[in-house]
Amino acid sequence: MAKRALGEHALAVVQAVRAVPDAPVVVGCSGGPDSLALAAAVAHLGLEARALVIDHGLQPETADVAVRVREQMQPRGLPVEIRSVHVDPTTDSGPEASAREARYRAFDDATAASGDVPAGTLLLGHTLDDQAEQVLLGLARGSGTRSLAGIPPERSLPGGGRLLRPLLGLRRTDTERACTEWGLTPWHDPHNDDPAYTRVRVRHDVLPVLEDHLGPGVAEALARTARQARDDADLLDELAERHLGDIPDELPVTVLDAPTPIATRVLRRWLIVHGAAEPGHDHVHAVMRLVTHWRGQHSVEVPGLRVGRRGGRLVVMRD
Amino acid sequence: MAKRALGEHALAVVQAVRAVPDAPVVVGCSGGPDSLALAAAVAHLGLEARALVIDHGLQPETADVAVRVREQMQPRGLPVEIRSVHVDPTTDSGPEASAREARYRAFDDATAASGDVPAGTLLLGHTLDDQAEQVLLGLARGSGTRSLAGIPPERSLPGGGRLLRPLLGLRRTDTERACTEWGLTPWHDPHNDDPAYTRVRVRHDVLPVLEDHLGPGVAEALARTARQARDDADLLDELAERHLGDIPDELPVTVLDAPTPIATRVLRRWLIVHGAAEPGHDHVHAVMRLVTHWRGQHSVEVPGLRVGRRGGRLVVMRD
Repeated sequence: MAKRALGEHALAVVQAVRAVPDAPVVVGCSGGPDSLALAAAVAHLGLEARALVIDHGLQPETADVAVRVREQMQPRGLPVEIRSVHVDPTTDSGPEASAREARYRAFDDATAASGDVPAGTLLLGHTLDDQAEQVLLGLARGSGTRSLAGIPPERSLPGGGRLLRPLLGLRRTDTERACTEWGLTPWHDPHNDDPAYTRVRVRHDVLPVLEDHLGPGVAEALARTARQARDDADLLDELAERHLGDIPDELPVTVLDAPTPIATRVLRRWLIVHGAAEPGHDHVHAVMRLVTHWRGQHSVEVPGLRVGRRGGRLVVMRD
Repeated sequence: MAKRALGEHALAVVQAVRAVPDAPVVVGCSGGPDSLALAAAVAHLGLEARALVIDHGLQPETADVAVRVREQMQPRGLPVEIRSVHVDPTTDSGPEASAREARYRAFDDATAASGDVPAGTLLLGHTLDDQAEQVLLGLARGSGTRSLAGIPPERSLPGGGRLLRPLLGLRRTDTERACTEWGLTPWHDPHNDDPAYTRVRVRHDVLPVLEDHLGPGVAEALARTARQARDDADLLDELAERHLGDIPDELPVTVLDAPTPIATRVLRRWLIVHGAAEPGHDHVHAVMRLVTHWRGQHSVEVPGLRVGRRGGRLVVMRD
């Protein structure tokens, strides 16, 4: 396909992707405007890459969506792989979380090193709008700086690959317009309009109200908050890790005689290593009272764990 | 006045105030429901205290408001002092900020030690709703963890007094109901309904939408965020202060070779000490590029200051 001059928004997407490393690249592609524009930019740059479409099989049209991605990307020189994954819709965490897990397992698998092929780079199309929504969701949980850090711009995958989100600086409207400029037809997932999902309500009802009343720069301010909160949370996590050192079976309460941000992080880490499932602020705070307000009280329940105090140590209570 | 049994909300306000130190107490009282309930609680506890009503003279009714506070509090045994302050409505920062400055100067003066009287404790009636609003305003600025820390629950005043906000754990509706239970008639400042103020829009338009769409616990989650952000910001500020040590005239760029949260705080502190006026994220970031992206570029303007690089040092440029 002959390359034409890029439109303004297509160019912005290409520029955002330009810094991506020249390793084997996998573009996670749902067929939506964000990931379709991302795939088109990767194709434009001629990277050694393929698009990976995960068919969760949860909606009747997803097989068609996958084929539409292939029809639009293969002529641009980007191979498209379609993988069907099994999603158990009956898990405790719900079908959405289950689909997410299955999707990330497939992504991890696709970027893992195998034989002569080195580990690859996974690109996902999350935008500044996704980031702003994530910060608001974290804010509504009130779980502190880490939950305000939103979506990480990059992280390691368990299989050795690397996940990058190069479009976090662009608005969703930029990717939509880029698709238009490229003559691409993105899929609009009906789930994205279903107000049963908190994220959808944040997108359609909350963020527009914030922008109306606080000014049009709110989404950018939320994304800026995410970057700063991530830096702060990373450093504080590292300080807590250094403070704790090797993780003991029983935690001397003297270890928690540290500034609150360190003490709570040390305690949270100790709880998680001993089997607590995502302990929230209230759980950590309740266990901390065994240290700060000790008067011989009973053990404290956190999800997946019961913690008591024996002498000068916190201990996991086995039944 | 004979003491009757306290209503549920009046009791909650009294309990919140109970931990206040037994020093001479000054209750800053606007006549609104929050500070009127606070004053009534202080009266109920029989603390050595007085209420201080600041008449800014900006609205025709404020003299009457002050008299109404006196009429309601003196019979409860709480002396009421009314101070008129001069507010210059033509300052750059606007009449609201100018009134705030004049008010805090009067508060500081009223709690400063003088002669035999030790420095006192100033109580202000800010509630959890004020805190939630403040966090949203900070979020909209996107200036990081410190701006999410909201309103401090306590701080020192320049004159040696101490400011406490004992009602930050209560909702505004609690103080309104407490006033009703006490038979008090609070003043409703018409400014609190004027959508020209961002804070008023946050109160009437933004927070209710967040509670509708994210759940009724949003204000509490915002207040929890504020507490955690304050702890994190305090520790990071302290680490930055220790990292910088004495503040040099010229800042060696090697000092900024530290984790981002430390480096940005060190740089911000250096800028402020050298006369920068509240440098925001973008200003600090722009100066930081003289370090991280140095290629001989021009000096950088921040409000109140121009900064350049000379050799391995950041320097303030004098014209």
